[in-house]
Amino acid sequence: MKIHIITTGGTIEKVYSESSGQVENAAQKIDRYLQLLRLPGAQVEVTPLMNKDSLLMTDEDRELIFAVVRAKIADAPVIITHGTDTMVVTGQLLKKRLGDLAHPVILTGAMSPLGFERSDGLQNLTESLFAARVLGPGVWIVIHGQVHDVDRVRKDKENARFVAV
Amino acid sequence: MKIHIITTGGTIEKVYSESSGQVENAAQKIDRYLQLLRLPGAQVEVTPLMNKDSLLMTDEDRELIFAVVRAKIADAPVIITHGTDTMVVTGQLLKKRLGDLAHPVILTGAMSPLGFERSDGLQNLTESLFAARVLGPGVWIVIHGQVHDVDRVRKDKENARFVAV
Amino acid sequence: MKIHIITTGGTIEKVYSESSGQVENAAQKIDRYLQLLRLPGAQVEVTPLMNKDSLLMTDEDRELIFAVVRAKIADAPVIITHGTDTMVVTGQLLKKRLGDLAHPVILTGAMSPLGFERSDGLQNLTESLFAARVLGPGVWIVIHGQVHDVDRVRKDKENARFVAV
Amino acid sequence: MKIHIITTGGTIEKVYSESSGQVENAAQKIDRYLQLLRLPGAQVEVTPLMNKDSLLMTDEDRELIFAVVRAKIADAPVIITHGTDTMVVTGQLLKKRLGDLAHPVILTGAMSPLGFERSDGLQNLTESLFAARVLGPGVWIVIHGQVHDVDRVRKDKENARFVAV
Repeated sequence: MKIHIITTGGTIEKVYSESSGQVENAAQKIDRYLQLLRLPGAQVEVTPLMNKDSLLMTDEDRELIFAVVRAKIADAPVIITHGTDTMVVTGQLLKKRLGDLAHPVILTGAMSPLGFERSDGLQNLTESLFAARVLGPGVWIVIHGQVHDVDRVRKDKENARFVAV
Repeated sequence: MKIHIITTGGTIEKVYSESSGQVENAAQKIDRYLQLLRLPGAQVEVTPLMNKDSLLMTDEDRELIFAVVRAKIADAPVIITHGTDTMVVTGQLLKKRLGDLAHPVILTGAMSPLGFERSDGLQNLTESLFAARVLGPGVWIVIHGQVHDVDRVRKDKENARFVAV
Repeated sequence: MKIHIITTGGTIEKVYSESSGQVENAAQKIDRYLQLLRLPGAQVEVTPLMNKDSLLMTDEDRELIFAVVRAKIADAPVIITHGTDTMVVTGQLLKKRLGDLAHPVILTGAMSPLGFERSDGLQNLTESLFAARVLGPGVWIVIHGQVHDVDRVRKDKENARFVAV
Repeated sequence: MKIHIITTGGTIEKVYSESSGQVENAAQKIDRYLQLLRLPGAQVEVTPLMNKDSLLMTDEDRELIFAVVRAKIADAPVIITHGTDTMVVTGQLLKKRLGDLAHPVILTGAMSPLGFERSDGLQNLTESLFAARVLGPGVWIVIHGQVHDVDRVRKDKENARFVAV
């Protein structure tokens, strides 16, 4: 079966820049980590859409994400990798605007970048790809072993996790 | 919520022995890899039951697994880490003997040991922990992004995967 | 034989902070990576002295490093983990002030933090521990497979390496 | 500067075979791990010569190793990756036959294969590449932070290390 991944940036995709000494949303890196997973029977199609800290996302960015998700969701589940700070905002907009869905839309991200010691990035990516096959239609946040309805969740920044509201 | 993990050995738990130069089912190693995962809201309880290559499992071993699963499944989902060669045999026995279930029973394992380059072990463990929360009652094999009903699956040894039958 | 390691911070020891989204010199982390190395016959004694970006090091900091190195170098080689930006400054001060040496003083660090994808940190730590046993007295920078006399080297920031001058 | 690496197999180069469930000397894997190291100023030239458990090496194999080392050592240091069980045998033969040397010949290997959890392979490879630049002419075993003269060392199998004799 086909699974779409739309990448938008966020911590999951940050890299350490040796010239600036900072972590930055620069080169796309989801592909490299996908290759560590075995997914027989799945055709994963990655669409690198933007590479932004989600605190810097504009209304236009979210319109673009919406437009691309609407186009992709027709034929297969969609996973969106996204910064955790405004993941709920984007998810709720998608839920409101997409209407009835034939497949699940899953937002995921990470508290530490993929490939950094103790990162949760590969865990969340693994879970989202699994969730894409087993969850029903809806807009979900999948992270840290949990599935949250995008209308009943918030980020708990102090504890670096998402909690039900 | 609580999730039980019963470990029985198999490739997922093999270690490289520097004295024999072989991979062996020796020390328990699932715990060490569980610590790499973030599972807020989950109480994972590990029961190390045996540590065997599944080709060497006896009827008595399977009776023991059945007895322990029956005791644990009453209050929470059960994940069984198991060698892939006879995972289906054990799963079908459990399905036949357990009767009606309140929670899912999930068998998982790996083609390469946890912690070896290119291992699928942590992926499968991650997926199984996620599956324990989202699958319904039944006896399932969860591996490589897929869920298989234990009555409709076989190991495809040539391609190192499980396929529906 | 005994080998001293004095940690002062720098990129090699930075961690990703999930609350700030930045890399920071916070908790000591050299010990954790030393445990990945096999060093029979070596007693490695770690002295965590400070944890600073080397661009923020003051004259007082360097006086302190000098005082501690002088105390330690009497009985064994000393490795100093240090930020790369001012590693040469500290090294030259040490060379000038320490006078005749009975053992090597080795400065090392990294372009990317220990434990980050593609980090050179463990390589440089491995090389420095090896160098501590084989180099003669002097103040050396050991990094990327090379040994530099601290009086004949500069950091080439563009190429993330040290070059002879 | 140029550094030769001649690969002959041994534990350092073993891979886990998913079809046999054993570790085997199959595909060459040193190259893949070399890419994790930063070695500016070094031209590392890898010659994959054979891929054998060193207990299975024949006199002909050692003659071949000798012939290739003799050819390579003329212009640059030579590192030989080799099984630890008979590394001393090969090293002593090389020392006897090579005569006066212009560069160091370094034998190295590992107790656990490259890329396996807790492997010492990358450490030993890192040390050998460093040693190739700093050691004088001679035939050396470089492993676990130590340099051994090939005539004064034996493998201590119980403790998975080399010790001076």
